[in-house]
Amino acid sequence: MNAKALIRKKRDRGTLDEAEIRFFVDGAVAGKIERYQVTAFLMAVFFAGMTPEETAFLTRAMLDSGESLVLPGFNLQPTDKHSTGGVGDKISFLVAPLVAAAGVPVPMISGRSLGHTGGTLDKLESIPGFRTDLSTEEMLGQLERIGVFITGQTETLVPADRLFYALRDAASIVESVPLITGSILSKKAAAGVRGLALDVKVGAGAFMPDRERGRELATTLVSVAGLLGIRARAHLTGMDHVLGRTAGNAIEIVESISALRREQLDPELEDLTLELGGSMLELAGACASIAAGRERLDQVWRSGAALERFSALLAQQGADPGVVDHPDRLPRPERSLEVRTSSDGTFHGLRAREVGEWITECGGGRLVAGAAVDHRVGVELLARRGETVHAGDVVARLHGRADLSPESVGARAATWVDVRLEPISPLQEAVVDPDR
Amino acid sequence: MNAKALIRKKRDRGTLDEAEIRFFVDGAVAGKIERYQVTAFLMAVFFAGMTPEETAFLTRAMLDSGESLVLPGFNLQPTDKHSTGGVGDKISFLVAPLVAAAGVPVPMISGRSLGHTGGTLDKLESIPGFRTDLSTEEMLGQLERIGVFITGQTETLVPADRLFYALRDAASIVESVPLITGSILSKKAAAGVRGLALDVKVGAGAFMPDRERGRELATTLVSVAGLLGIRARAHLTGMDHVLGRTAGNAIEIVESISALRREQLDPELEDLTLELGGSMLELAGACASIAAGRERLDQVWRSGAALERFSALLAQQGADPGVVDHPDRLPRPERSLEVRTSSDGTFHGLRAREVGEWITECGGGRLVAGAAVDHRVGVELLARRGETVHAGDVVARLHGRADLSPESVGARAATWVDVRLEPISPLQEAVVDPDR
Repeated sequence: MNAKALIRKKRDRGTLDEAEIRFFVDGAVAGKIERYQVTAFLMAVFFAGMTPEETAFLTRAMLDSGESLVLPGFNLQPTDKHSTGGVGDKISFLVAPLVAAAGVPVPMISGRSLGHTGGTLDKLESIPGFRTDLSTEEMLGQLERIGVFITGQTETLVPADRLFYALRDAASIVESVPLITGSILSKKAAAGVRGLALDVKVGAGAFMPDRERGRELATTLVSVAGLLGIRARAHLTGMDHVLGRTAGNAIEIVESISALRREQLDPELEDLTLELGGSMLELAGACASIAAGRERLDQVWRSGAALERFSALLAQQGADPGVVDHPDRLPRPERSLEVRTSSDGTFHGLRAREVGEWITECGGGRLVAGAAVDHRVGVELLARRGETVHAGDVVARLHGRADLSPESVGARAATWVDVRLEPISPLQEAVVDPDR
Repeated sequence: MNAKALIRKKRDRGTLDEAEIRFFVDGAVAGKIERYQVTAFLMAVFFAGMTPEETAFLTRAMLDSGESLVLPGFNLQPTDKHSTGGVGDKISFLVAPLVAAAGVPVPMISGRSLGHTGGTLDKLESIPGFRTDLSTEEMLGQLERIGVFITGQTETLVPADRLFYALRDAASIVESVPLITGSILSKKAAAGVRGLALDVKVGAGAFMPDRERGRELATTLVSVAGLLGIRARAHLTGMDHVLGRTAGNAIEIVESISALRREQLDPELEDLTLELGGSMLELAGACASIAAGRERLDQVWRSGAALERFSALLAQQGADPGVVDHPDRLPRPERSLEVRTSSDGTFHGLRAREVGEWITECGGGRLVAGAAVDHRVGVELLARRGETVHAGDVVARLHGRADLSPESVGARAATWVDVRLEPISPLQEAVVDPDR
């Protein structure tokens, strides 16, 4: 067995067996296979694809490249939620404390901003003091104490993913169903997750704009998770427009606190949180159905227990829990600008990709790995999705640094505003069930 | 412009412009683009292809990555022949001195064995003292003195090809029409070639077994050569069986000397040599047609001038010219074994790929770049193609080291023998003309 022959076999659309895939993953992590061979292989996978079995072998070999969390026994299965990446997607900050408050352990290992999409860890780090570098011991301790953590990958968990991900990013090999599947599920399995609600974003603002490919990714994720002993369900949801009322870093935390308090709660954000959270409760064995899970979470939410759990999460991870009462302690923008609509009709929202690109360019995301993030940059919607608007109405506000000016934004912000004659379509598009 | 964006564009089947391709080639050679990005790009080209224009841009950017030979003015255009690789292909040793003796300068930069195919330089190095490392000054001087050289690539000619070729070989990205085209034509252009007869091998023993893809390669080579100012013609010829009466290294030089002397001249080898040589004469402007070129070369061959020119080539390049009278001075095998047919019928020859693989395994070729070659290993046909044979007849002989034994070969040699009821088909399959 040698790397050249395996690259050639995949290049010629052959199917690799478990030993071959393990040879490649182990050789790559050990440095016995050159990085220029790894990228050639990954690009061949991009074009030639992998069967679900190959993808499961890949995921397991990646998982076995490092350590795994050994979680203690819980009454309910440790369950996580994962989004494939969007703009304004702050569901984790709501669903993790909600589901934990409902008694399900939530061991959440999250990522950073990528391309035009935001990153859970970047958003959390806008809270002064918040640590996203928990050790595996700290993760286990915190999970026992408060039933939830949200942290970054460590050096020791899934080194194969660290290597592959860096190479895929540098060599433009990101958007591949088997490679995305291997990357997501190896990390979830290493974190000890046994239930997984997947939020697979489709539409212009998603990494997989094409609905067909989104469905393919959802199906692969659910079936490969099953092969790895994880009960997973995929929810295909629209990502044409910014989700909720904000996009950015600090500003999304402010919206999340407000939502946990049920002060300003965007109905679509509430609905998707309950749906994904209800799904998690069903997957964890806490409820018999998603509907029952939704009902349970609605009670928890209204009781204030989720807000309390979020506050406990901040305290455990080094941040000032007082921000839940004083969100003005978060970084604040230096200047703001209004965005107006130029036509009459139904407000569909702000186009997610364009908004995400603007935030990234202004420093709210990162164009290269490791770059610093400006937590103040963001966008705030003033009009509600589905509302009737008239030309000249202010529908959104941009937040940024002192150098934010009408000249620096120019006419582009107006092109983000999506006003049409048709009514809006629902975010939730389809579900891929584990028992299908 | 950046490497990631260019990889992505090609990966998504986009068409690159000249500046983009030059940016990539220059960046790769300068080490500004990582090798793992280069292989990802090359693998994307393998799958997504390139237009003839893109391939011409690639070839020119590769050419411009290094020096070029500046040939003096000649009455006839410097013209070369290039084969895409076969087993028993010794045409270069015949056609180069023949065409040079007919007055056309032949600046021939050749390669080494690759995969199961033999290498012109390896075969020449079986002649004691023969140098394949001429400097550019030596090439120019020799071309002026005797009108022909056959040598290897230097450090300074086409460094982009050296880099790409090594990476393609290590990462299994060899069989790509645009990449093969760029590799061949950048080297020919750097050598100052203005006419080029291409021997594109198709069939089971060729790198492109598929006739459709062979024709695609031929068409691309001819049209891209035209864009670079090289008049090229592609001859598609069969490579199902060993060409001529021998395959190996020293043994092919022995056959070539015998053929130049017209002592033992395989009719197919003679025909293909005249066809490719006649094509070269027409491309160089020495004759009005391939047929006229063939006639001229037939006279040159019979006059003994080609043998003389070959002898001069040996003398110029450091070898003993006496081997043309004493081929026994070449390395000789230590042991030989007979190969018999097990059936009655028409002898079609020895299957080229299998024979080439055996020679390579026995050390007559190389499995990794830079490995030493055993010049003694080889195969000799005793039956002629098209001849009627009977079960039990000896049709070939294997030559090797002292450890060559019936046990070491086993039953496999018998499977190389191709005996059928149908008559043989001609080697020459099609021609792609420069003026089409």
